[in-house]
Amino acid sequence: MTDTPLKKVNLQEKFSQISDHWNPRVVGEWSGQQVKLAKFKGQFDWHFHENEDEVFLVVRGVMRMGLRDPDEREVLVEEGEFLIVPKGVHHCPAAHTEETWVMMLEPATTLNTGNLQNERTRNTLEHL
Amino acid sequence: MTDTPLKKVNLQEKFSQISDHWNPRVVGEWSGQQVKLAKFKGQFDWHFHENEDEVFLVVRGVMRMGLRDPDEREVLVEEGEFLIVPKGVHHCPAAHTEETWVMMLEPATTLNTGNLQNERTRNTLEHL
Repeated sequence: MTDTPLKKVNLQEKFSQISDHWNPRVVGEWSGQQVKLAKFKGQFDWHFHENEDEVFLVVRGVMRMGLRDPDEREVLVEEGEFLIVPKGVHHCPAAHTEETWVMMLEPATTLNTGNLQNERTRNTLEHL
Repeated sequence: MTDTPLKKVNLQEKFSQISDHWNPRVVGEWSGQQVKLAKFKGQFDWHFHENEDEVFLVVRGVMRMGLRDPDEREVLVEEGEFLIVPKGVHHCPAAHTEETWVMMLEPATTLNTGNLQNERTRNTLEHL
């Protein structure tokens, strides 16, 4: 049940509020999962998630995903395409185009840098 | 971990394999959740899900969602927009345009007709 009227979310409108990179914002929650939006630029860090699978859906641009599944390789994921990275799989997200807009679907417990703690780690995420 | 190389999914390509309506196909699974695709035409039945929240993301066309949250009303959800319907909320999906393409994100246990069993109930879903 819900106490307040439900609101739809417009992806373009939310992305227009994001001006930095590799900093996921939460724009929706359901059944223990979250919808997160982030802009990618350049390359992220290789990492994996011990317990969480992640869905990467490309909204604008092209994402280049480094994978060790098990051989190291790269997959280009274009607008309107998604890739699911299961727990335990080492991966390295990158923007293949200048900037890539990505919608991520994953358990609320998912840390952006997975097994790493570094300057890009976001322990708490802003909600838009 | 994964034994076989991961494959990306192209939404247009999957939708091109669907020619009927109100018959969700599973195109991805992660962390107990599923990505389902369906084409909507006309109006579905009012129903609710006892345990599952559902995300409806419109890929093409306009969806009209009837809601009782708690007052009965309708929300138009356009391309690039999503609406999350929490468990317990009565809702009635419909195509506002001639045909609407919708990506649903929801627990694998979600039955399309929720609390109803009727000729539109799909107890097992095809995987594309």
